[in-house]
Amino acid sequence: MAEVETKVFPIEALRDFSNRMFLHFGVPKQDAAQAAEVLASADLRGIESHGVARLHSYFDMFTLGRINPKPEIKVLRSTPSTATIDGDNGLGLVVGPYANRFAMDMAERFGSGWVSVQNTNHYGIAGYYVLKALERDLIGWAMTNSTKLVAPLWGAERMLGTNPIAIGFPGKEEPPIVIDMATSAAAYGKIEIARRSGEPIPEGWAIDSEGRATTNPDHMVAGGALLPLGSDRDRGGHKGYGLAIMVDVLCGVLSGANWGPFTPPFALRQEIPKRSVGHGIGHFFGAMQIDGFIDRDSFKRQIDDYIRVFRATKPAPGTNGPLLPGDPEREAEKSRRVSGIPLVWPVVEELRDIAQKTGLPFD
Amino acid sequence: MAEVETKVFPIEALRDFSNRMFLHFGVPKQDAAQAAEVLASADLRGIESHGVARLHSYFDMFTLGRINPKPEIKVLRSTPSTATIDGDNGLGLVVGPYANRFAMDMAERFGSGWVSVQNTNHYGIAGYYVLKALERDLIGWAMTNSTKLVAPLWGAERMLGTNPIAIGFPGKEEPPIVIDMATSAAAYGKIEIARRSGEPIPEGWAIDSEGRATTNPDHMVAGGALLPLGSDRDRGGHKGYGLAIMVDVLCGVLSGANWGPFTPPFALRQEIPKRSVGHGIGHFFGAMQIDGFIDRDSFKRQIDDYIRVFRATKPAPGTNGPLLPGDPEREAEKSRRVSGIPLVWPVVEELRDIAQKTGLPFD
Repeated sequence: MAEVETKVFPIEALRDFSNRMFLHFGVPKQDAAQAAEVLASADLRGIESHGVARLHSYFDMFTLGRINPKPEIKVLRSTPSTATIDGDNGLGLVVGPYANRFAMDMAERFGSGWVSVQNTNHYGIAGYYVLKALERDLIGWAMTNSTKLVAPLWGAERMLGTNPIAIGFPGKEEPPIVIDMATSAAAYGKIEIARRSGEPIPEGWAIDSEGRATTNPDHMVAGGALLPLGSDRDRGGHKGYGLAIMVDVLCGVLSGANWGPFTPPFALRQEIPKRSVGHGIGHFFGAMQIDGFIDRDSFKRQIDDYIRVFRATKPAPGTNGPLLPGDPEREAEKSRRVSGIPLVWPVVEELRDIAQKTGLPFD
Repeated sequence: MAEVETKVFPIEALRDFSNRMFLHFGVPKQDAAQAAEVLASADLRGIESHGVARLHSYFDMFTLGRINPKPEIKVLRSTPSTATIDGDNGLGLVVGPYANRFAMDMAERFGSGWVSVQNTNHYGIAGYYVLKALERDLIGWAMTNSTKLVAPLWGAERMLGTNPIAIGFPGKEEPPIVIDMATSAAAYGKIEIARRSGEPIPEGWAIDSEGRATTNPDHMVAGGALLPLGSDRDRGGHKGYGLAIMVDVLCGVLSGANWGPFTPPFALRQEIPKRSVGHGIGHFFGAMQIDGFIDRDSFKRQIDDYIRVFRATKPAPGTNGPLLPGDPEREAEKSRRVSGIPLVWPVVEELRDIAQKTGLPFD
């Protein structure tokens, strides 16, 4: 694909700008720093679509009064190992970390903690939450539902979000295994990139507005849909569809949030669903104490062994052999901490627009 | 594909024969009935590969003394919401239901229960365990690792099992949503069917022994491998690979069982791995009390609504629109309870072989 022109920023500059924008809208100091940290984590890990590239959407939401800058987060219901939290329509970047900490605290007391969250908003990358659990030597899980973009297998319209699943397992000497994946065949961002460069998309990514398979990114964007992981019946599209439902039910239905096609959008260009079946969007977090199952140290040594065994897999022709989940993001973070975050021009211009409208310094 | 000749048996006859075979090998009465029930559940739900089609493998394992007919199942470690269970090399069809009950009991007391199992064997269909949780109005999870058959993305050899994930959510008036899926693009059984009928397999299912994509089922069987869900990098093969690792770590590493390429085989034709990194294979069960999150009745009504909304999805051309996960299996069960279970001839002959060698009546 064509090289896209970028401008490079140190992560500190981006984190700082996000932080100040949140403060500008009345987000309390600690929450603003937390929210900026989650966004920075996405940019560092190379998942640009979920970092400052979303800042203008947060800006729009605050400007329209659609996000509560000072939520009173409440626990609606709990048992020793489960809870439902009401995010009071706060930033997902603040509500998510709160709920994740709640799950981790339960895990440390009662072996595991499982928290469903309603009345929240976009929470950044699922992987962030798992990394926080790894800092406490816990196995962490994170899921969220999101605005409709994906068709069910054999459907011709958007019904589900890209509904990611993340889970992480700590190693001892080796870096952790960190799985963080959308349940769609491809990310919407990849459709956008192909569209901008005028190139076709691979077969299996999308359908058009009539539900026909398409390799034209314009046809997906103009009322088509992404396909679930597995793409079609032969290759297991019903499985990706099933996983997307799993995430949607755990995040949406179990918490009392909206689900499926009724999940509210995060970007202004997306229409607001006519029906509401709950409050905001939903997340689901899990944390498990390793010592609740097996000696923690021996588990971590086995993970080291696991990683080494899989790295030694005989490589497929034309490849260097399998990666471990989390490798690409960790490599990106390593290099981006040193050489900065390359932002494409449309994102730079969005940040400048925020700067201009808020009077905050940028660039 | 070519129609395969079958002979039809009432489910009672198959369950009875399985039961008597287990008794023949000294399995206690209650355990034999339990094991036969799990196998029957697979045949009823149309997942023939996991029903009496496996009975001859159990027969072989017992004959060789590789499965303990009278295991002393032990809890190795526990917290209020987690545990690890040692199956004492018993039948997975007995150890699995025990561990699943343990998880459900914890969920009823402490909100959720998560049980990792080591030193166990093939446990039938993952969906069975989820159905048991639904009987108690719990959200049930079940996973297992299994003998290597699947290559990691960019790998050229078998390193992972087809490692299934199942989860179920109860409806009120509508039947439950039951997700039960292998994390490979296609089931091994489908390769076998194509092979027998001399037909090619779809692109995206398998690689040959050199790691090259193949549509020839013989090439997969002769030292090739299945591909993970998503098939290749473009279509998200790294995601299916990640899910397979997730299941393998939760079932194998977390319990102290074998994992990855070291998972012991279940069929005689498969070679025994040279290295052992734990005990037997591993399972992982979860159960969550719905009331621990949200009012149970309102959850079930929302699931009804969910099902109706998804059934009303605009259909893709040439289809009747999306199914809900669990539909095909429930339909199969409905008709098979009435008209019986069609077994292909090789399976009938295997059952006759067992009958002949044990002296048990069959047919």
